[in-house]
Amino acid sequence: MSKHYHCAVELAVDVIGGKWRPVILAHLKEGVHRYGELRRLVPDMSEKMLAQRLRELQEDGLVERIDRATKPAHVEYRLTEEGRSLAPVLQALYDWGTARAERTATPIGMPRIR
Amino acid sequence: MSKHYHCAVELAVDVIGGKWRPVILAHLKEGVHRYGELRRLVPDMSEKMLAQRLRELQEDGLVERIDRATKPAHVEYRLTEEGRSLAPVLQALYDWGTARAERTATPIGMPRIR
Repeated sequence: MSKHYHCAVELAVDVIGGKWRPVILAHLKEGVHRYGELRRLVPDMSEKMLAQRLRELQEDGLVERIDRATKPAHVEYRLTEEGRSLAPVLQALYDWGTARAERTATPIGMPRIR
Repeated sequence: MSKHYHCAVELAVDVIGGKWRPVILAHLKEGVHRYGELRRLVPDMSEKMLAQRLRELQEDGLVERIDRATKPAHVEYRLTEEGRSLAPVLQALYDWGTARAERTATPIGMPRIR
């Protein structure tokens, strides 16, 4: 990384920021997920976007792709150790989002994945 | 808010996400700041961007603008109670960013504001 940062938060946001990265990471924090499961968990994200974000998260060392090499293909995504180090950030975002939803009476509809 | 969310993290990111909002909030978490101080603390952000983000943060009820109505003008920004409720998120981002910077040997140069 050659970028110059002026604040640790700036660096953190550069790595995990964006509209969907924290959401994908938060789902993977809860456990290993297959690609199709992630699709259903984040239904508003296009297929192309999900694939792209997952690739970036792998490149940044936060997520690993496990290909079981079975037929039919069984590909899973999970957090790396570096990704798991984000647990306090993801938990804080989840807690605040939940409290904010209550305060503002915003419904949050969790999709069922199975 | 009429948007439909599928996850509390999605809502949180919608409110505090983006490249600069968490950085501005993190600085205001440390104390009240004048506009010019924020400019120096976040030197990579354009003046237009800073003004825009501050307005959005006010609209979302996270930041308040205090105009002391003195001459010369003395305008300060500080977190509202809702903004202060973000402290655990901002702290977690700061801590993770600091640890990541150490792991990846990324320098973080804090500008001096006075």
